Amino acid sequence: MESTIRKAKKICPFLKQASPTALRALSTSSAGKSSGLLEAAGSCPVMAKVLAQRSAGIHSNAKIHAHPSLNEIPTKVEAPSTPRATTEVNKPFNYSQFYKTEIEKKKNDRSYRYFNNVNRLRAEFPRAHLKDIDNKVTVWCANDYLGMSTNPKVLSTIHETVNMYGAGAGGTRNIAGHNRHAVALENEIARLHHKEAALVFSSCFVANDATLTTLASKMPGCVIFSDQSNHASIIQGIRHSRAKKVVFRHNDLVDLESKLQQIPLSTPKIIAFESVYSMCGSIAPIEAICDLADKYGAITFLDEVHAVGMYGPSGAGVAEHLDFETYANPELAAEATAAKATVQSRIDIITGTLGKAYGNVGGYIAGDAVMVDTVRSYAPGFIFTTTLPPAVMAGARAAIEYQRETCKDRVAQQTITRYVKARLADAGIPVVPNPSHIVPVLIGDAELAKQASDMLLDDYKIYVQAINYPTVPVGHERLRFTPTPGHSREVADKMVESLVAVWQRLNLRTVSDWAAQGGLEGVSTFSPTERQASPMWTDKHLAFGAIPQLEYSDRYTVNEAIELPQEIACSA
Amino acid sequence: MESTIRKAKKICPFLKQASPTALRALSTSSAGKSSGLLEAAGSCPVMAKVLAQRSAGIHSNAKIHAHPSLNEIPTKVEAPSTPRATTEVNKPFNYSQFYKTEIEKKKNDRSYRYFNNVNRLRAEFPRAHLKDIDNKVTVWCANDYLGMSTNPKVLSTIHETVNMYGAGAGGTRNIAGHNRHAVALENEIARLHHKEAALVFSSCFVANDATLTTLASKMPGCVIFSDQSNHASIIQGIRHSRAKKVVFRHNDLVDLESKLQQIPLSTPKIIAFESVYSMCGSIAPIEAICDLADKYGAITFLDEVHAVGMYGPSGAGVAEHLDFETYANPELAAEATAAKATVQSRIDIITGTLGKAYGNVGGYIAGDAVMVDTVRSYAPGFIFTTTLPPAVMAGARAAIEYQRETCKDRVAQQTITRYVKARLADAGIPVVPNPSHIVPVLIGDAELAKQASDMLLDDYKIYVQAINYPTVPVGHERLRFTPTPGHSREVADKMVESLVAVWQRLNLRTVSDWAAQGGLEGVSTFSPTERQASPMWTDKHLAFGAIPQLEYSDRYTVNEAIELPQEIACSA
Repeated sequence: MESTIRKAKKICPFLKQASPTALRALSTSSAGKSSGLLEAAGSCPVMAKVLAQRSAGIHSNAKIHAHPSLNEIPTKVEAPSTPRATTEVNKPFNYSQFYKTEIEKKKNDRSYRYFNNVNRLRAEFPRAHLKDIDNKVTVWCANDYLGMSTNPKVLSTIHETVNMYGAGAGGTRNIAGHNRHAVALENEIARLHHKEAALVFSSCFVANDATLTTLASKMPGCVIFSDQSNHASIIQGIRHSRAKKVVFRHNDLVDLESKLQQIPLSTPKIIAFESVYSMCGSIAPIEAICDLADKYGAITFLDEVHAVGMYGPSGAGVAEHLDFETYANPELAAEATAAKATVQSRIDIITGTLGKAYGNVGGYIAGDAVMVDTVRSYAPGFIFTTTLPPAVMAGARAAIEYQRETCKDRVAQQTITRYVKARLADAGIPVVPNPSHIVPVLIGDAELAKQASDMLLDDYKIYVQAINYPTVPVGHERLRFTPTPGHSREVADKMVESLVAVWQRLNLRTVSDWAAQGGLEGVSTFSPTERQASPMWTDKHLAFGAIPQLEYSDRYTVNEAIELPQEIACSA
Repeated sequence: MESTIRKAKKICPFLKQASPTALRALSTSSAGKSSGLLEAAGSCPVMAKVLAQRSAGIHSNAKIHAHPSLNEIPTKVEAPSTPRATTEVNKPFNYSQFYKTEIEKKKNDRSYRYFNNVNRLRAEFPRAHLKDIDNKVTVWCANDYLGMSTNPKVLSTIHETVNMYGAGAGGTRNIAGHNRHAVALENEIARLHHKEAALVFSSCFVANDATLTTLASKMPGCVIFSDQSNHASIIQGIRHSRAKKVVFRHNDLVDLESKLQQIPLSTPKIIAFESVYSMCGSIAPIEAICDLADKYGAITFLDEVHAVGMYGPSGAGVAEHLDFETYANPELAAEATAAKATVQSRIDIITGTLGKAYGNVGGYIAGDAVMVDTVRSYAPGFIFTTTLPPAVMAGARAAIEYQRETCKDRVAQQTITRYVKARLADAGIPVVPNPSHIVPVLIGDAELAKQASDMLLDDYKIYVQAINYPTVPVGHERLRFTPTPGHSREVADKMVESLVAVWQRLNLRTVSDWAAQGGLEGVSTFSPTERQASPMWTDKHLAFGAIPQLEYSDRYTVNEAIELPQEIACSA
């Protein structure tokens, strides 16, 4: 490198001024893949042109990234791929052209997003009107998994809180924005997860980002082990912490252990993973990951965003669900928690959302009081942001309490999920097999997925968003269905019939077509017995939800009453 | 370095395995101040002890940081200062001790935050009850500057929206969470700022962070020029972008220009600054910064968080206020915007909040459609987060529209601000002089600031939070008062009397005490004529707000009616 620099210095005024140390610092980076020198070259009249010629190649490489959602995170590797914006040497940077080029890239690789205008109607859940108020559709892809956004207790709490305390909180938590609603909500969350403390954020994106950034950047030499399929918020938190990241294969304990073994016992480590993975519906081997964490001196960071409200006797998530009977009994739960004898009690940091099954907005972390206090005291994303409105916090608290006291919505949701999965299987529609409440229907082509989604919306009044790259890998495009207790069997039957029609009209691949191709993502790749991924909510769990003192909600007046678990008649 | 490595390799198994290139990469970093090698050393049985001995010195250095709020951002420089957590070599990292040490640090430097439980009452604005519902206080430090959180039009909009559309949005903007409320709110914001487009985020913290991170990391070789007093969200966005940051002295055009000159014209540059700085109330020389941006080929990123709703005939902020008469006339405004003849039209990116003067929660950016679409398409903090609830978006939109149509709340707020500043000046209480609506009262000692705040709360039923390090520099501690149209003169008189009593009881420094010490932050440092910082809302602007067709709100029933501008009788 030294001789190259000497030669270059003779002809380049920039290099002439720079010290070798500064150039070394520019050319290397321990934190990421970007090179400051490469970026500086983008402003150079000579190098910018050279880079421009190389840019097409660099851009096409970006697509074959191992991490499905990683390409969403802005990275400087892409920087040289905007040659038109940098070639005018004596003129200011062409910002407008830069923006246009970035948007063109998205359109060219079909990842440009066109938002559907969907207005979910409280009194007609799960129906919504589109832009035109008379154009109504059934929503099949919202994350309001239990319809809690329309729950009467939640809504009356919201109205009462607005009446009493107005709209906004009026400040950050430190300055005028801390109140009884924040206290009650955080106490409720801590109670839900049987943890000492909880902390509420604007969203779980912020909770994940701020918590990982804060802890991993402060713990000396911290290494983060991150599941390959982790959400963008976790990836962003790791990136921003600038800690060392080790990605392990999705839910792969052997790969995780082999990587943990390579780091000294005394080095601080965080294993960051999710319980339910949103786009494929897979569920992590949580207990086994806790075992590995204990063995190698790591702490566990578990994102239960798609699981809170949905699993366990209290709705605390999959970690609670794994000790269902224990948590169903308050005395047993207290004892087992004190002894750290449950999976949930072994998780160090649980993160969750108030915006999906709890039907509102906001996110949180829960864990030991000292951990929560550290994040509370150091995370800018918590400290310097306005508190959520009192009515949002009160409404979310009411939703958590409601779901903590009864299993009936969870049972109804799992029941209709089983029904939908069974009907789709009967029809030969390819569902990515999984043990959760998510119903991913594989299409495997971006354009066809968009066509199917548009056709369902326009011709069948069914709204299900197409999920394309980069949210899923290219070739894994899908429709992601999320049944709720508000989706009756009649509504589900209509959806399945419509889907079959669309499959025929667009000549989409069926289960047997996938089999002929060798299968994908578990579709036609498992043996027939393995393919029916055993549901997390077993028959026994469903029966628990039917205990006599629990009465079903009377709020689903438009659709038929929620199915009772004993009526289950699916082919699983 | 090479010979040191050779020697070290003979005795260290870690160095023996590592290549010189990898070590160089670990030891240098172009993006931040942290060294990967130093962190790795924290895990080494030999080096950890050496570092532990050095740690006290490193920690005390952290305090003399140039940037007031920068120390809030987690930085790895602090990592070695937790020796107790790393010295046990053959044991796992002591996480619990690490957390305890981090919290102790905060308590030791008096930056540990104790939240006050403040429940602002809709029907008694600006009063609140504390933990006990019967213990009521007057809130003097909320950012609900205009009381819009209690505005009847806003609240009826919220109730109606909850009734029609339920609580949460049910998904991200791409998946089931895009709706008429988001469309209407973004259209309203774009209209407010006379821009092509706008984009709403969970908060303005996220808006600033996500926008700066996305744009500065994607523009090749981008350099960000950042005002020294910028908010934590801007600092975080710059840090996360890993772009080159150049800090210029607060509101110092000479310093900014000298730094802009050093970067080639063709290099993309962002000048990031705020209109109203929250803690001192100063206002940026926006037009002159636009001139510099034009001259040096930069774009402008203006945070109007503390100004939206508060300045200008439409409440669009200080940039609008600078062309008051033009924007007061819709035809003139349209012409001037098309010709880029106003200050606001020259700003490339305006960011604002829905959580302060608009009385709700959320943040936004506004600007050219291609810029907004680029952020919409690439920013993970926008893409992967649940949409704000329909009622929040509808309520915020109603607040913007309300404030766009009338100046009366702004005029009333400025009128009472003038009154409070004049009364405090008469009483010899040291107010940091500024042209804005913020009333910062200087104390200059962390412990005394907390005592004054506690005494006002307990003995005088006045809530004003003490602002200590790291939000302000050590020695600059203050009480930050924010008068609203709901604070009557009677209420203000009581506050001033209480403050005078507290000043005497705690023997706090008066204006003349500060003068004897040479002054601080403009208190007793300006000549008498300069000290009265000329208000941004001039008498002429205030008179504009009193035009006959504007009627005053009838919502402040508890306190007396809002003062009319012609009644102004302050000593300014």
